[in-house]
Amino acid sequence: MTTPEFEINRNILSGNTADYEIIRTGEILREEKINPDVVVDFTFHDDGILCGITEVRTLLNLVLPEKTGQAFSLEEGQEVKSGEVVLQIKSSYASFSTYQTAISGILASCSGWATAAKECFDAADGVPVIGNPARYVHPEVVGMADFSAAVGGCSSTTTMAGHYLHNLTPSGTMNHSFVLLMGDSLRAMNAFDKHMDLDIPRVALVDTFSDEIVESIKIGHSMKGRLRGIRIDTPKSRGGVTPELVKEIKSRLDNEKLGYLDVIISGGMNPERIRQFVQSKAPVGTFVVGHYIASGKPKIVSADIKSIDGINVGKRGIIPGPASNEGFKQIH
Amino acid sequence: MTTPEFEINRNILSGNTADYEIIRTGEILREEKINPDVVVDFTFHDDGILCGITEVRTLLNLVLPEKTGQAFSLEEGQEVKSGEVVLQIKSSYASFSTYQTAISGILASCSGWATAAKECFDAADGVPVIGNPARYVHPEVVGMADFSAAVGGCSSTTTMAGHYLHNLTPSGTMNHSFVLLMGDSLRAMNAFDKHMDLDIPRVALVDTFSDEIVESIKIGHSMKGRLRGIRIDTPKSRGGVTPELVKEIKSRLDNEKLGYLDVIISGGMNPERIRQFVQSKAPVGTFVVGHYIASGKPKIVSADIKSIDGINVGKRGIIPGPASNEGFKQIH
Amino acid sequence: MTTPEFEINRNILSGNTADYEIIRTGEILREEKINPDVVVDFTFHDDGILCGITEVRTLLNLVLPEKTGQAFSLEEGQEVKSGEVVLQIKSSYASFSTYQTAISGILASCSGWATAAKECFDAADGVPVIGNPARYVHPEVVGMADFSAAVGGCSSTTTMAGHYLHNLTPSGTMNHSFVLLMGDSLRAMNAFDKHMDLDIPRVALVDTFSDEIVESIKIGHSMKGRLRGIRIDTPKSRGGVTPELVKEIKSRLDNEKLGYLDVIISGGMNPERIRQFVQSKAPVGTFVVGHYIASGKPKIVSADIKSIDGINVGKRGIIPGPASNEGFKQIH
Amino acid sequence: MTTPEFEINRNILSGNTADYEIIRTGEILREEKINPDVVVDFTFHDDGILCGITEVRTLLNLVLPEKTGQAFSLEEGQEVKSGEVVLQIKSSYASFSTYQTAISGILASCSGWATAAKECFDAADGVPVIGNPARYVHPEVVGMADFSAAVGGCSSTTTMAGHYLHNLTPSGTMNHSFVLLMGDSLRAMNAFDKHMDLDIPRVALVDTFSDEIVESIKIGHSMKGRLRGIRIDTPKSRGGVTPELVKEIKSRLDNEKLGYLDVIISGGMNPERIRQFVQSKAPVGTFVVGHYIASGKPKIVSADIKSIDGINVGKRGIIPGPASNEGFKQIH
Amino acid sequence: MTTPEFEINRNILSGNTADYEIIRTGEILREEKINPDVVVDFTFHDDGILCGITEVRTLLNLVLPEKTGQAFSLEEGQEVKSGEVVLQIKSSYASFSTYQTAISGILASCSGWATAAKECFDAADGVPVIGNPARYVHPEVVGMADFSAAVGGCSSTTTMAGHYLHNLTPSGTMNHSFVLLMGDSLRAMNAFDKHMDLDIPRVALVDTFSDEIVESIKIGHSMKGRLRGIRIDTPKSRGGVTPELVKEIKSRLDNEKLGYLDVIISGGMNPERIRQFVQSKAPVGTFVVGHYIASGKPKIVSADIKSIDGINVGKRGIIPGPASNEGFKQIH
Amino acid sequence: MTTPEFEINRNILSGNTADYEIIRTGEILREEKINPDVVVDFTFHDDGILCGITEVRTLLNLVLPEKTGQAFSLEEGQEVKSGEVVLQIKSSYASFSTYQTAISGILASCSGWATAAKECFDAADGVPVIGNPARYVHPEVVGMADFSAAVGGCSSTTTMAGHYLHNLTPSGTMNHSFVLLMGDSLRAMNAFDKHMDLDIPRVALVDTFSDEIVESIKIGHSMKGRLRGIRIDTPKSRGGVTPELVKEIKSRLDNEKLGYLDVIISGGMNPERIRQFVQSKAPVGTFVVGHYIASGKPKIVSADIKSIDGINVGKRGIIPGPASNEGFKQIH
Repeated sequence: MTTPEFEINRNILSGNTADYEIIRTGEILREEKINPDVVVDFTFHDDGILCGITEVRTLLNLVLPEKTGQAFSLEEGQEVKSGEVVLQIKSSYASFSTYQTAISGILASCSGWATAAKECFDAADGVPVIGNPARYVHPEVVGMADFSAAVGGCSSTTTMAGHYLHNLTPSGTMNHSFVLLMGDSLRAMNAFDKHMDLDIPRVALVDTFSDEIVESIKIGHSMKGRLRGIRIDTPKSRGGVTPELVKEIKSRLDNEKLGYLDVIISGGMNPERIRQFVQSKAPVGTFVVGHYIASGKPKIVSADIKSIDGINVGKRGIIPGPASNEGFKQIH
Repeated sequence: MTTPEFEINRNILSGNTADYEIIRTGEILREEKINPDVVVDFTFHDDGILCGITEVRTLLNLVLPEKTGQAFSLEEGQEVKSGEVVLQIKSSYASFSTYQTAISGILASCSGWATAAKECFDAADGVPVIGNPARYVHPEVVGMADFSAAVGGCSSTTTMAGHYLHNLTPSGTMNHSFVLLMGDSLRAMNAFDKHMDLDIPRVALVDTFSDEIVESIKIGHSMKGRLRGIRIDTPKSRGGVTPELVKEIKSRLDNEKLGYLDVIISGGMNPERIRQFVQSKAPVGTFVVGHYIASGKPKIVSADIKSIDGINVGKRGIIPGPASNEGFKQIH
Repeated sequence: MTTPEFEINRNILSGNTADYEIIRTGEILREEKINPDVVVDFTFHDDGILCGITEVRTLLNLVLPEKTGQAFSLEEGQEVKSGEVVLQIKSSYASFSTYQTAISGILASCSGWATAAKECFDAADGVPVIGNPARYVHPEVVGMADFSAAVGGCSSTTTMAGHYLHNLTPSGTMNHSFVLLMGDSLRAMNAFDKHMDLDIPRVALVDTFSDEIVESIKIGHSMKGRLRGIRIDTPKSRGGVTPELVKEIKSRLDNEKLGYLDVIISGGMNPERIRQFVQSKAPVGTFVVGHYIASGKPKIVSADIKSIDGINVGKRGIIPGPASNEGFKQIH
Repeated sequence: MTTPEFEINRNILSGNTADYEIIRTGEILREEKINPDVVVDFTFHDDGILCGITEVRTLLNLVLPEKTGQAFSLEEGQEVKSGEVVLQIKSSYASFSTYQTAISGILASCSGWATAAKECFDAADGVPVIGNPARYVHPEVVGMADFSAAVGGCSSTTTMAGHYLHNLTPSGTMNHSFVLLMGDSLRAMNAFDKHMDLDIPRVALVDTFSDEIVESIKIGHSMKGRLRGIRIDTPKSRGGVTPELVKEIKSRLDNEKLGYLDVIISGGMNPERIRQFVQSKAPVGTFVVGHYIASGKPKIVSADIKSIDGINVGKRGIIPGPASNEGFKQIH
Repeated sequence: MTTPEFEINRNILSGNTADYEIIRTGEILREEKINPDVVVDFTFHDDGILCGITEVRTLLNLVLPEKTGQAFSLEEGQEVKSGEVVLQIKSSYASFSTYQTAISGILASCSGWATAAKECFDAADGVPVIGNPARYVHPEVVGMADFSAAVGGCSSTTTMAGHYLHNLTPSGTMNHSFVLLMGDSLRAMNAFDKHMDLDIPRVALVDTFSDEIVESIKIGHSMKGRLRGIRIDTPKSRGGVTPELVKEIKSRLDNEKLGYLDVIISGGMNPERIRQFVQSKAPVGTFVVGHYIASGKPKIVSADIKSIDGINVGKRGIIPGPASNEGFKQIH
Repeated sequence: MTTPEFEINRNILSGNTADYEIIRTGEILREEKINPDVVVDFTFHDDGILCGITEVRTLLNLVLPEKTGQAFSLEEGQEVKSGEVVLQIKSSYASFSTYQTAISGILASCSGWATAAKECFDAADGVPVIGNPARYVHPEVVGMADFSAAVGGCSSTTTMAGHYLHNLTPSGTMNHSFVLLMGDSLRAMNAFDKHMDLDIPRVALVDTFSDEIVESIKIGHSMKGRLRGIRIDTPKSRGGVTPELVKEIKSRLDNEKLGYLDVIISGGMNPERIRQFVQSKAPVGTFVVGHYIASGKPKIVSADIKSIDGINVGKRGIIPGPASNEGFKQIH
């Protein structure tokens, strides 16, 4: 993964997205001329995969004082336990207080997506997982959701916005609308084959009009070896995609000397369902996971002042004093 | 609510956030000169509150042909059942296919947030609910999350980004960091009182250093009637906020002739916990809900071609033909 | 239903199928010259549908003394509660003791089947149910299982052996083997149409080679109005038969002006699944139920002496004395 | 076990018990002169104990062409897993298609009984189990149920019909009716002792009139060493037979120098209850199991054409081609 | 119920049974000359039946100042909800502080017993319940447990110690030891009949040696109408006492013209089991309940100062100020 | 533990607390001049800790014939399994029959308390447990409950009545009433410090008026090293005492150089909650357990005659003959 290039937009930098109470009390502190050096710890309140640190670093590099500000953090993609401090900022309070909401929000949502992706990755036990959250998250964050999916272990995602951040080749071939518009699965595949660059893998979508296997065999023979795989997205009302279906397809494709075709499956995939495929040894080539990753619950990340001008403090209910964490790397 | 002003950013308009297969097959269709008039139905696959239609309308107004394109939808905030079609677009396929991912994503995530907010609103049974998702969602979507919370029934949210969309006065007074920096709850309140405009309600945060009631009474007396309420955010390790605590606080405030103070509570609120307060008749003034709204699971919204040049179609597993819905209003 | 003609075979009449202890103690009683007039009650220990009384009557008419023996029973198909006496025999002990095992066995197994059929009948709420237990029960009892299914409410069953007992027209058209051997679903249907009498309804089996709907429409159009229905038996690995599938099929058939076709479904049907179809208003024409009826658990029927030469008796744990039951009809 | 002698009755041989659709399509195929060589696999869809193969072999030997027909199967009593092929027939289709229903039915019901018996046998952990299904199954199949119980591990069953098939000595001594008719448990035992051959073990039934132990001791002393055991069938309303009861009985019998008496128990026995006796070390001599074996759920056995004139086939949902199974023995 | 005569023993009056911290701090307060007038509320923290007030009144009348002390309480046997104040004492602190532990303890344990008895009483639905806790509680409190059982609804208990408090005739006839020592149930009954006053009801214990019914009938006939009832205490290993057993006994007694005999049952009775008898309409004459009543969990009763010299107070977590309760009666 | 001095009161010795049927049948046996030598076994029907044997020995030594009576028992505090005989008395029946109810009751209730205490002791894993049942049991048995708690492993209890039996120093310092009456936690502690002997440990109760930590630190500094610990009894409405609270308190005390203070916790403690503290390594100094010990369910102890004049007997349901138990020690 090369370094992603996150842009922090004006809305965030101006404080518009901050909890307003932070802005207000910031003004009072200015009036009162209170601006000590503080240490703020960002603590995880759940187990999960840390994600968003790269974007947070981009933000902090824009705002923290170059000399007097310091920040330390765990690494993108690291496993974190509940109660662990993942980010520690040491600087004058006024230099970064405005951005606490944004930092918490980035870490919370990206870690939620990355953790969900990681669960799928672990369940898949070596079979590639493609992350496909784009149609379930707001388009403003499609890139970040894709990036988080990659941090969680996805070998690819499906948008250019994601590609600009994680630099992996975007995945995806054709959809049901295309097949419907072409009027026939084979005709759709042929058109795809005719117009697409040769380095784009030919993968047929085979459940639009008729039985998956009937369509697969027809297209497979017609494409004479140029077909790389088939994608199955059987709707729930037709039984969805099951391990038995994948086994039968592979067996019938073998009978037809089409055993080289990969079977790519999508449709309501999640760790539990992926595990069923893996445990029953269904010969899946790739899992595509969308809604489960998009639904990754935000991890709760709290920001707490732990030291003021070198004196350990902590609000009631918190053990006072900054945390130390062996895994900390300096990021500013 | 005045009309919010959503801006659709370049990334979305350029197709960067679309599922790449839509872009690819769009190119093929262009090459093949296939561009029929289609009807595409956007169907909910869950029960919930519809949200995001305002932003979708803004997008469609930018891209659909002014004369030949049409769009119909249900209304922002409407209750929707699983299987219901919430949006129907009639236009040439090429005119809007690029934006199907974005439209699905806006509706999925905003409806997820609005539904979660609505559950809290219903549970609160008339007591105001403030939505506070900002620190749990990515800052790019803080405004939309706040807007969705308002659609779901929140009487206010906590950021300016939200305010620009839903036009409600942002809520929020002070945070624990401020109190820690001021070194004393009363001193913090006094500074707030001194510097803030008079139309901003004075609400004390009373659990930073000592017992909530000890602090409340001290500040209440000191503010001599200018205090409007107290905010309780007792940490879990101190028992969290409970109905019994709220009852005891109100009773002791009454004893001290401070019964006019509102009790605003936050910390892990969700519909179930809100119901406990309501059912046990704890005199809560306002509920503040953050993580539960931010975690609102995206509603699955699928986009399906139902008619091509006037002929009913549908992929396998779908009943062919466009839906009709009495609730449809034309939005383009 | 005309009177069925049961035959009682030699094995049963000779006592070979009786519990041997009954034979042995019969011999001793003969030696001891003990043969009082007794009343024996046959009691149900479960709730359920009584079945087998017709066959039991046939047996009793063969063995009971014409003048001195008497038998009373509830009626075939009647609902019975646990603890109810369903049959009462009054005669000299030696005249029928040999047949107690057979009588209990007939009532136990036939009532088990009939009860299972009744549960399906009730769930189907007016939609016809065909009983198809033949391939799950021993061939020696296929007729009795079919008869019991009819007593439980099935409008037809699938064997001639059943027909000879309940006199209903046997149901069934073609099987998957036939379609495989003909090599094509349409060719199979045409052959059926060519050779079968005109009074046999034409029903196509449409899931052998390809998608159910693709095959249905092809055959439907080809048969030009002579097709009466289609049978769906989608295998579990392809999602089985679901309410959504039936709805989609009917909708697509309607689109093709084939809406007059009945949809007959089979495959793992049981009361719970039938109820799902009925509750979701899937337009099913007929349910076919096999394994569930065949698995109807034998109802426990105990035979107890309740009176000896006019004196009330009962083994320990039994309330002594013959039962009276308003529903009793004399059958001998 | 010597070879049992099954007789296949006329009803079965004539096709009366076959699913009628098999008969009908057989006629069409004859008309169409379609009669290829096929391979039909009979597949188990449950785990269980295979039973019925002996009877099936008898049937196949009567109907399959002597030279061109072949059949292979697993062995009677073998443990089978779901998905395993237990019988494979290779022959011209017309030569055996009529009997597929009967073959499936025999295997389904006999394997159901044998599996239930095996579960009891395993639970009993070495203590003999007597199978007593006769009063819960239809008398036509009492012999097969007894045979299946023996295949599942029962050391004896209770009817002559069973004996003719499995050749084990039938078990059983006296029943409650006998004791009631004799008017006294001791008098009943004495009559039994007087009239029965000496090689028949004397076992007293001791719960008809009074306390089990009171009766046991009275009879035990009276029989002066000729008593072999006692049978306990305590009704549920008197607590049923429990491990504690068996322990107390043995202890009191020991006190009376009657410790040599076996305790044979019956009444609602099933694997779970048997395990309770075994685990609590109750000194049970023999378990008698009736209803549980008779209720053995038919195993689903499907018959599928897997090859037609040497070409692998299979209906949709089935992996095409005949199975191979290392356990196959040729039976024809 | 006449007024019971509780005696408060020296140990209690001397403070030996008080929590020692009360004694210690009492000394300090004396040294500091702090002895204000206080109001102490005794609050229930469970739902239940209030019991022990009579004994507490006896104690308070011994120790509270005759003129300046006051006490108010709910009534013996009243139903109380969690959070309700059951006793309120107004006096100088030193006058009764020593006895707070004892008062709480009396109310806690007696209310626990009474509540358990009440649950049985309610379940019995009009059939008398005899309380028999004596063998499960410490003999020092047998009288109080019996008294509490009577408060909870028992129509009698089994000890003289109880009788002295609640004045009901003690219940109980003979035990298994007696029958064993007499060597025969009938002989035991005859001896009882011979030596006991005529006003003591003759009730036979009939499960010591043999079957309950065999013994009942024998004794019933022998006593020629002088027998009032039979007591059944069938041990668990013999099935315990069940509704079916009671029904069979009554039916067989009826057959023998002994239907006038009451059936008194004991052995592991509790509300759930009692309900089973009542719901199945088993003709039980009396239920005897021992262990369930003795196990009545102590109700938590806390004592809190609510007012000091007329000023409302309360420790943290308590709403300050004395409770008012419409049900209060003055008891001192 | 030195020998405790139990006193058996007149009520018990006179038979007033015995089940009245024992008294009555005792009279009959006297009249009948039946008084054989018997062996009576007292059997546990639950698992648990034996307690009460010391008091039972005191009673037996008062009543058993010095020469001809014998008694054997397991030891105070021993673990006992269900079905084990814990006490065996050999004597003439009349010499002790009156006391069977009392003996059973002592063992039942004391073993119930001791078992509950032992569960807490085991859960505490080495941290001391103080037993505090006094306010939940009747004051007549406060001493026995404290004694039983000590037998179960408590290192101290809270009343003088307990001290007289188990000889451990009673525990306890101050209560909330004391702090309320002193008006301030620090003032209360100072008064305690001033008046109490120096060998009594100074432990502050710190949750009466304000936050536990605020009060602890204030008192800790003021007492200048003379404070031994703090007691936390946070009410449920304030979150109760949690592992996190204890950790935070210790951490803040450490910050203040007050890390030497023990944290003593009370309030709804039971084995499950104690385990939570132990497993999360919260630095608890002492657990105080009251209601859980007081609620220890009486263990069922039955008394059965097993031998009469040397002949083994037993009522129905009991294995006849005296038990032998390797653990028996002679106690009379």
